[in-house]
Amino acid sequence: MPITYEFIKECKQTGARLGKVHTPHGSFETPVFMPVGTLATVKTMSPEEIEEMGANIILSNTYHLWLRPGEDIIKDAGGLHKFMNWDGAILTDSGGFQVFSLSDMRKITEDGVHFRNHLSGEKLFLSPEKAMQIQNALGSDIMMAFDECPPYPAEHDYMKRSVERTSRWAERCLNAHARPNDQGLFGIVQGGEYEDLRRQSAEDLISLDLPGYAVGGLSVGEPKDVMNRVLEFTTPLLPKHKPRYLMGVGSPDSLIDGAIRGIDMFDCVLPTRIARNGTCMTSTGRLVVRNAKYARDFSPLDENCDCYTCRNYSRAYIRHLIKANETFGFRLTTYHNLYFLIKLMGQVRQAIRNDSLGDFREEFFEQYGFNKPNAKNF
Amino acid sequence: MPITYEFIKECKQTGARLGKVHTPHGSFETPVFMPVGTLATVKTMSPEEIEEMGANIILSNTYHLWLRPGEDIIKDAGGLHKFMNWDGAILTDSGGFQVFSLSDMRKITEDGVHFRNHLSGEKLFLSPEKAMQIQNALGSDIMMAFDECPPYPAEHDYMKRSVERTSRWAERCLNAHARPNDQGLFGIVQGGEYEDLRRQSAEDLISLDLPGYAVGGLSVGEPKDVMNRVLEFTTPLLPKHKPRYLMGVGSPDSLIDGAIRGIDMFDCVLPTRIARNGTCMTSTGRLVVRNAKYARDFSPLDENCDCYTCRNYSRAYIRHLIKANETFGFRLTTYHNLYFLIKLMGQVRQAIRNDSLGDFREEFFEQYGFNKPNAKNF
Ligand SMILES: [Zn+2]
Ligand SMILES: [Zn+2]
Repeated sequence: MPITYEFIKECKQTGARLGKVHTPHGSFETPVFMPVGTLATVKTMSPEEIEEMGANIILSNTYHLWLRPGEDIIKDAGGLHKFMNWDGAILTDSGGFQVFSLSDMRKITEDGVHFRNHLSGEKLFLSPEKAMQIQNALGSDIMMAFDECPPYPAEHDYMKRSVERTSRWAERCLNAHARPNDQGLFGIVQGGEYEDLRRQSAEDLISLDLPGYAVGGLSVGEPKDVMNRVLEFTTPLLPKHKPRYLMGVGSPDSLIDGAIRGIDMFDCVLPTRIARNGTCMTSTGRLVVRNAKYARDFSPLDENCDCYTCRNYSRAYIRHLIKANETFGFRLTTYHNLYFLIKLMGQVRQAIRNDSLGDFREEFFEQYGFNKPNAKNF
Repeated sequence: MPITYEFIKECKQTGARLGKVHTPHGSFETPVFMPVGTLATVKTMSPEEIEEMGANIILSNTYHLWLRPGEDIIKDAGGLHKFMNWDGAILTDSGGFQVFSLSDMRKITEDGVHFRNHLSGEKLFLSPEKAMQIQNALGSDIMMAFDECPPYPAEHDYMKRSVERTSRWAERCLNAHARPNDQGLFGIVQGGEYEDLRRQSAEDLISLDLPGYAVGGLSVGEPKDVMNRVLEFTTPLLPKHKPRYLMGVGSPDSLIDGAIRGIDMFDCVLPTRIARNGTCMTSTGRLVVRNAKYARDFSPLDENCDCYTCRNYSRAYIRHLIKANETFGFRLTTYHNLYFLIKLMGQVRQAIRNDSLGDFREEFFEQYGFNKPNAKNF
C-alpha cells in the first residue's frame, strides 16, 4: 500500500495517538496539521517556507485545480508535486465539499452531481469516477473518496440515504482508482450526529480495506461539544493501524481536542485566511495586528514564538504593511500562523510521548483564553 | 562625508564609469540599479530575497512613509533600516516628485508646497526643511534635496525660475540637515531640455559641495533621444569623484544608455510594477506570461536566467498563479524581473571592465528586440 501508518504510542493521560504516516513523498509524524494550498500554492508562501516551518504534507483542492488550470495541464507538467515545486506529501480532497458549498443549482443523482462552475456558470458534472480521474492526474499521495456532504443539521432519514450513497460512491472510487500503487485512497465516514449512521458508514468503508479514513461532516457549524461527542463514538470504530483524518479543523482548541479523541491528521484554511485579515494566533490568544494600539508596539507578534516573522519584525511594522495592503505583511502573518499550528502539533506530540497531553491542554487553554466565558474558538 | 564615491575606471569604448559607492550601510559597485521599496517593503519581496538577488541598496519614498505609517513611528522603531529589517543601504527621495505627481490642489510658494494628501484629502505642507526632518527621522543613507519638479514640456522662463528655486531650496535643505555625519544629501539637477539651465543648476548645486548629484526631470514622458541628449550635456558638468544618479529610469535600454552617458545609479518601479501585471523582462525581450500560449509551456520564464524563479518554476505554473491572482505568482515574476535588471547591471560593469560596453549594448539590444522598428522601451 502506498500509504502506511506506524503506531508509536498512546498518551496514558488522554488516549491520544502518536504515530507516523509513510507516503511516496516522505513521512510525517502525527498528530499533524496540514497547511492548505488550494490552487497549488499555500497562499502567499513559497514551498521552501512551508518546508522551513516544518510541514511535510500539504493539502490541495481537486475542485479548484480541475477548474484552474485544469488537471490535464498539471498531468502534462509531471504531476502536482512537480508543477508547484513541492517534494513533500500532498493530500487532495475529492471536490465534493466545494461542489456542495460553492456551486449553485446542483442536482444530486446516483450517478454524481450536476452543478454550475462557481466562476463561469458553466454546467459541470462530478462523479466518483471523475473525482478519481482528476486526482490520478494530479498524482497526490493521498486521495479522498467522492462523498455526499449533507447539510447540517439533517434528519436521520436523509442522512441514512446519504451515508448509503457515500458508501456506494466509495466503492466506485476504489474501482475507478487507476494508480493504487502510487496513491492511497481514503474513505470519508459520514453520518452527522447519529451514532448508528457513523457506525454503518465506518463499517461500509472499512470493508473496502482503504489505507486511511477521514471523519467528514464535522466543523460545518455544529457546536463544539457536538463535534467532540461525535468523535468520541466515531474514532473507536476505525482501525487502529490506519490514519484518521478530521477534515476542515484548524482552531488550536479543536486540534488538541481532536488529537485527544484519536485523530491523526487535520487541515484547515483558518490560519492562512485570518492571516490575510491581519489576525494572528499567539500563545496568549488571538491578536488583531491591524488594531491602532499596535501602531507603536515594537515587540514581536508573539514573545514566545521563534518563527521568521517574530525573530525579525515588530507588530508596528506588520500593522503598517497590512494597513497599506502590502503583500509582505500577509506573508509575515501567514508564516507566523502556520508556524504556530505546526509548532503546536509538535508540542502535542511531545506531550503524548510524556503521557501528559491532558496537562498540556489545561495550560494551553488557560493561556490562550479558551477557558474564558464566551471564548471564541480560535 | 558619509557617502563617498571611488572611481575605478572608464570604459574605453563608451566612457561609462565603473565605481564603488561607500555608505554607512555597506558599499555597492556602480553602475547600479536600486529596487524600489516605496512603503518600507519592495512589493511582494522579503529583505532576504532582495539581498539574495544581489541588491545592496534600495530606494524608499519619503512622501509615502510620511503619510503611512508616519516618520515618527519609524524613528521610534530605530530608523527605517531596523523597522523593515534591511541592513543594506537605503536612498530616500525627497517627496517632491509625489507631491507634484499625486496630489491635487497644490500651491507652490517660495516657502514650500501646500497640497492635499492623496489618500485622505487632508491639507499638508512640504518644504525643504520638512523633507529634511522626515528623512533625518527615517535615517536613510542617502537623502535627496527637495526640488520643484516642473511639468514636461515647460517653457524656458518657467524652467529658469524653477531651477533657481530648486537651488535655493537645496541650500535650505543643506542648512536643515541635522545628521550630516550619518546621512549624505544629494542635490537634484533640473533644467529640462535646456543646456544653459542644466549648467546653471549643476553649478549652483556643486557650489554646495554635496556628496552626490542626481539628474532629475527626465523619464517624465520625453522621447528617448531627448533623455540621451540631456544626459550627454549634463553629466560632464558633474564632479568626477561623486556619484551620479538618474531618477526614475529602469528599462533595460535606458539603463545601458544612461551608463554610457556617465550615470552611476538608477531606480524605477518598472520591474516590480509590470511583474504584478504578469509581464517579465527576459533576455529575448518582454514576455507577457498571462498569455494563453503559455498555458502548457513548461519552460522557465527565461532560458538564460538562473534566478530562483527560473530554476524552479514553469511559465505554465506562473501563468496559472497570476491568472488566479495568487500572491506567489507575483512573488515569482517580481523576483525574476529584479534579478534580471540586477544581473544586467553586473554585465554592464563587466563590460566596462573589459572596455566593451558598446559591443555588449549592440548584442543586448539585438537580442532584446530594441532594434526592431517601433520597439517598446522595456
Ligand atoms: Zn511567530
Ligand atoms: Zn529568472
